[in-house]
Amino acid sequence: MTPSAHFMNKAFEQAAQALFLSSPNPRVGCVIVNDAGQIIGQGFTQQAGGPHAEIMALRDAAAKGNEVHGATAYVTLEPCSHHGRTGPCCDALVAAGIGKVVGALTDPNPQVAGRGFERLRAAGVEVEVGPGAAESRELNIGFFSRMIRGMPWVRMKAASSLDGVTALHNGKSQWITSPEARADGHAWRARACTILTGIGTVLEDNPRMNVREVETPRQPRVAVVDSRLDIPLGAHVLQAPSGCLIYTCSTDQFKIKQLQALGATVIHMPNAAGKVDLAAMLRDLAARGTNELHVEAGFKLNGSLIREGLVDEFLLYQAPKLLGTGAMGIANFGPLDDLNKGLALELHEVARVGPDLRIVARVEGRSAF
Amino acid sequence: MTPSAHFMNKAFEQAAQALFLSSPNPRVGCVIVNDAGQIIGQGFTQQAGGPHAEIMALRDAAAKGNEVHGATAYVTLEPCSHHGRTGPCCDALVAAGIGKVVGALTDPNPQVAGRGFERLRAAGVEVEVGPGAAESRELNIGFFSRMIRGMPWVRMKAASSLDGVTALHNGKSQWITSPEARADGHAWRARACTILTGIGTVLEDNPRMNVREVETPRQPRVAVVDSRLDIPLGAHVLQAPSGCLIYTCSTDQFKIKQLQALGATVIHMPNAAGKVDLAAMLRDLAARGTNELHVEAGFKLNGSLIREGLVDEFLLYQAPKLLGTGAMGIANFGPLDDLNKGLALELHEVARVGPDLRIVARVEGRSAF
Repeated sequence: MTPSAHFMNKAFEQAAQALFLSSPNPRVGCVIVNDAGQIIGQGFTQQAGGPHAEIMALRDAAAKGNEVHGATAYVTLEPCSHHGRTGPCCDALVAAGIGKVVGALTDPNPQVAGRGFERLRAAGVEVEVGPGAAESRELNIGFFSRMIRGMPWVRMKAASSLDGVTALHNGKSQWITSPEARADGHAWRARACTILTGIGTVLEDNPRMNVREVETPRQPRVAVVDSRLDIPLGAHVLQAPSGCLIYTCSTDQFKIKQLQALGATVIHMPNAAGKVDLAAMLRDLAARGTNELHVEAGFKLNGSLIREGLVDEFLLYQAPKLLGTGAMGIANFGPLDDLNKGLALELHEVARVGPDLRIVARVEGRSAF
Repeated sequence: MTPSAHFMNKAFEQAAQALFLSSPNPRVGCVIVNDAGQIIGQGFTQQAGGPHAEIMALRDAAAKGNEVHGATAYVTLEPCSHHGRTGPCCDALVAAGIGKVVGALTDPNPQVAGRGFERLRAAGVEVEVGPGAAESRELNIGFFSRMIRGMPWVRMKAASSLDGVTALHNGKSQWITSPEARADGHAWRARACTILTGIGTVLEDNPRMNVREVETPRQPRVAVVDSRLDIPLGAHVLQAPSGCLIYTCSTDQFKIKQLQALGATVIHMPNAAGKVDLAAMLRDLAARGTNELHVEAGFKLNGSLIREGLVDEFLLYQAPKLLGTGAMGIANFGPLDDLNKGLALELHEVARVGPDLRIVARVEGRSAF
């Protein structure tokens, strides 16, 4: 491994600590290395509005009394050049006298998009782009999706038996998978900006849709597809600490005001068929800062999202059991007449979680935006 | 690793070469090691009626001009003490002057069952049992099953999408999984003693049920469940080079004679309900030397075997696609009213095969016979 790859890996170890934290900002890590090859400062992007990785690393170096003049900063994404809620990281790096910046990848944010590297070069800082491009993009696939496609990265979670059963004909589904798989599922909730569910699930299970089984510094927002505003005022999702978005076709001002009084945001987004326009909803969720959208919904909403081609990735937990016929599957799509009409995926990652299997599969070619 | 474990691993490398070959005998390997720690002879069990591993290793040493007097033989299973189709290996080891035998595990064959080790000790040969017991049993799980339970190890193969679809409502199922998965499936056929299918599959697909996609020194037998003797005389399975067994409830002497004339063995095995008695069929298959039974059947026979609790292991290939609702699943069992009525499995091995996933899962606790 080259020294460059080694230190970039160290920067990624920092970035990984922003996984549950930095939304809607990308997960970025930074290490500052002196001429002797020692890491003299490190940090990662904090919560929205807080300092970025570069600032954290500079502060860390300062707190330790380390001189950064002439040092090299390894950053897992191009340092920002714009005034967002924080000042530009580029200016801070220049002001601190950093001699060289190694950045894994250009920031896809149109407000940055190479201008960070340019600004550093213009100030006399040596700039090297890479290594770590693929890893940086993968860690921030939702951020890249939002910046490039104007859509969140849509990840649909489902738990089934090995033969694809998610619930019995009588609705029984608790619990098909193990406590380990459920805890793992909460880690995937934690990294999402928003968790999406449908009114069917709210009415049947009244879930909290928050993160409980793993520690997290922030809770994701919750979004509900609720065409007719059937959501009960006592629904747990209305208590979501980061807020609840309700996408509807209803114009019932009385119910809307009741929901708003509870802190919910009601968004009127009908399509021509009188259902919620799911593609428009996703664009709206992106505009509201959703990088990764975690879908935990029922048979109907899952089916609608799949039929409209809106799912990018599946997070499937399979319990080692067979539950047979006459039961519910993952999603209401089909019956198909031709195998070629199926949804073609690619295995992205396969792991064992407790007694269960976790399969991450992506829609074929979908990550190549 | 101890020298003992090292040489036993070498013996297992030999045993692995008997995987497609030695049925119905166990897969056994042997290496002979001299005082200097050199392997001076090695071999593995040949086809039924051929020499066992120990004889092959002694012959190998002789062919190389190596003196085995006082040497140590590492064998992955207890050397046989009985006259089967070949003479007892014990006697050959003693006659050759082998000084010590390290055997992984006692042979479960009631005709051996410790007598091999006894006989060696009585002849003044030092005997050590282990290491490698678990590996030896695993490699020969079908042989152990037949010897201990009087039943084959029943492995059911199925290929589905990630959502459990094995065929569309119109019967389309070619090909859900990849060429790599199909070739891998042939390797699992090759290691089986017998391949079982149902008359439904014969009538619909007229499969050959032989091994084509991998090289094999022998073809497994084929067995067909055919209650009414509906099998056409032109069915490919009747051409199986190692013979075709037909389990039936029919007493149609004319059809039986026609099938016998084609070389088939017709076995009358009805249960009280006028169907083939599947448990009795498995006992009969064991009595006919079936260690591992590879089931490649359709929805109905799969369901019957599962409902009667006769399946030990599932070999599931999952293609990374979703095929939706209104389609066929793995087996006709269900609908269930309670999740606890599902068939509880344990993941045994998970691997990626080409673009697909291969899951080997065992019925919970079933391998502990």
